[in-house]
Amino acid sequence: MNEKIRLLRERLKSINIEGMIITNPVNIKYLTGIENEGTLIITRRENVFLTYTMFLESVKSTVTINDEIIVADFKDVSKEECENFFLFCDNVGFEENYVTYKQYQYLKQKYKVNLVETENTIEKLRAVKDSEEIENIKKACELTDKCFNYLLEYIKLGKTEKEIAFEIEMFFRKNGADGLSFEPIVAIGENSANPHWKPSDREVRMADPILIDMGCKYNGYCSDMTRTIFMGCILEEIKPVYDLVLKNQLLTNKEIKEYASIKTISQIVENDFKLNNYRLIHSLGHGIGMETHEIPFINSKNDTFLKDKMVIANEPGIYIPGKYGIRIEDTILVEKNSCTPLTNSPKNYVII
Amino acid sequence: MNEKIRLLRERLKSINIEGMIITNPVNIKYLTGIENEGTLIITRRENVFLTYTMFLESVKSTVTINDEIIVADFKDVSKEECENFFLFCDNVGFEENYVTYKQYQYLKQKYKVNLVETENTIEKLRAVKDSEEIENIKKACELTDKCFNYLLEYIKLGKTEKEIAFEIEMFFRKNGADGLSFEPIVAIGENSANPHWKPSDREVRMADPILIDMGCKYNGYCSDMTRTIFMGCILEEIKPVYDLVLKNQLLTNKEIKEYASIKTISQIVENDFKLNNYRLIHSLGHGIGMETHEIPFINSKNDTFLKDKMVIANEPGIYIPGKYGIRIEDTILVEKNSCTPLTNSPKNYVII
Repeated sequence: MNEKIRLLRERLKSINIEGMIITNPVNIKYLTGIENEGTLIITRRENVFLTYTMFLESVKSTVTINDEIIVADFKDVSKEECENFFLFCDNVGFEENYVTYKQYQYLKQKYKVNLVETENTIEKLRAVKDSEEIENIKKACELTDKCFNYLLEYIKLGKTEKEIAFEIEMFFRKNGADGLSFEPIVAIGENSANPHWKPSDREVRMADPILIDMGCKYNGYCSDMTRTIFMGCILEEIKPVYDLVLKNQLLTNKEIKEYASIKTISQIVENDFKLNNYRLIHSLGHGIGMETHEIPFINSKNDTFLKDKMVIANEPGIYIPGKYGIRIEDTILVEKNSCTPLTNSPKNYVII
Repeated sequence: MNEKIRLLRERLKSINIEGMIITNPVNIKYLTGIENEGTLIITRRENVFLTYTMFLESVKSTVTINDEIIVADFKDVSKEECENFFLFCDNVGFEENYVTYKQYQYLKQKYKVNLVETENTIEKLRAVKDSEEIENIKKACELTDKCFNYLLEYIKLGKTEKEIAFEIEMFFRKNGADGLSFEPIVAIGENSANPHWKPSDREVRMADPILIDMGCKYNGYCSDMTRTIFMGCILEEIKPVYDLVLKNQLLTNKEIKEYASIKTISQIVENDFKLNNYRLIHSLGHGIGMETHEIPFINSKNDTFLKDKMVIANEPGIYIPGKYGIRIEDTILVEKNSCTPLTNSPKNYVII
């Protein structure tokens, strides 16, 4: 059987769940490679993918015999057959963080089951990457570094946030990415104080900080990197803030390894910022993979530990309303005794 | 008070709902113009928007005094204040088709309320457009027609689906659209038989049908249009299928007006296709507005009626697996005694 489904079955068994109904397309793609709409049914013995007539051919050409997935048309599966999928199952899992309240009611009624929460079982599997996934993320990160390098030439006085964001998208598309992993954030001057700024017509002026948060997708896997660079010079008042952010980014990178406590890592930054009269208003980071933001979420409320082969973003930032913001972020591979940044653009003062 | 919120309050009252918790960002933007993350709370007397510290400034600069919306920071609202929002309310509505099962549990617990389904009350309001919304959709449709016209020059033998799709996106962005309303479908030859084809490296060859389904966003509002055109000539076997699709598209356009039964309109096409030994495998259409697919969904299971100033897509199609597909789609404004297509690209045989 497909290795990912086999692992999922093991996990479900360990939490006394005898079957699962999977509807989140990202999870379906992760487990099966299927990109068409449908429902993946994990019964005691079988894996069934139900889809619509128009997708049947495409789905059948995606799955292999080794996957052991039975493909069927929704309209060929009777009410009784639906109810029989989980015969004698006490607990059938569902994706409580994806399924809407209305869909929950529908699934319960259609499959006549006792639906139980699976607590992100699949998302937790996704958090630890296999070598193929890591290769894809590495490729996405390499493209991101190349894009950054290109931007150092491209950005000039008078370029707008929108123009730079557009250029980022074009670069990724022309250089082999599937597309963006998220809409680039390009925030110039005072706009950089807003961590989620949407590119505007603000132009680059002398002495502006320019915060660039960008990533692309390669073979379905995301990268995520932020650098804050400067036009012409760096204001003296910004330097200590930049230094503090960078110091904390490097410091936490040293702590990132298997079994490191996520809470502790976040608190290192929170405490050091507080000592310097700043606040970490944005969470420190997040997992990256098929989605830009996924498990593990790196903040001081998270009581879990890092695992070998997780890929995470480490993105401390300080934001001074009305003035400027500094964020430095890398995509990082967690390893047994250390970590390896997969984005490697310069982090010292970059003045263009 | 903001007119849209006033209307929502009226509707809620008519179904005995005394308050509502709104979390769907599209609905929040529709009702308030706010594009930042947060929760809109409609209590008996007040409208409150709760958001995060980093979005406070941006939200406050979006709402006007006339909106009568109190803006607050999540972290400044105590547990008790949350529980007091709906004091003495028996029924508080939520978005059962948006809120996940897990969020439902969270909201129930946080606001200590009896949450009841609102049956798409806001989405139903959104289905009927005001004049400003219609103007925006018209602009998006005009750009779509212009793009089609441009493509007739651009598409040549050897161009690939991906190249054409990219050119569509570039056209929209260079010509004033916010962006795409959905990833363009460009399906050449046998690929057009798949209604949801994803552009590939398939090149345009002589006698190919080329199905192009595209739309852009203008000021947040979507367009949606499909044309199937031909390279060099149109195969004789395709002509009767094209004619049948076009006949039905024109026929249903004649039926589209206020109070027309959605079921009846769909059945006209279903029956005529059946008479000719084809099947309508894809629903006939859908509403268009802030989202490409929204209420009303046009299929023979929908028992509702069209209303004046709804905007819908009418997209009959016939798909012959392994051979070709023909789809013709317009964005259409429903009016009192007729309808007006807002996309107006040629629908006769277009041979390039």
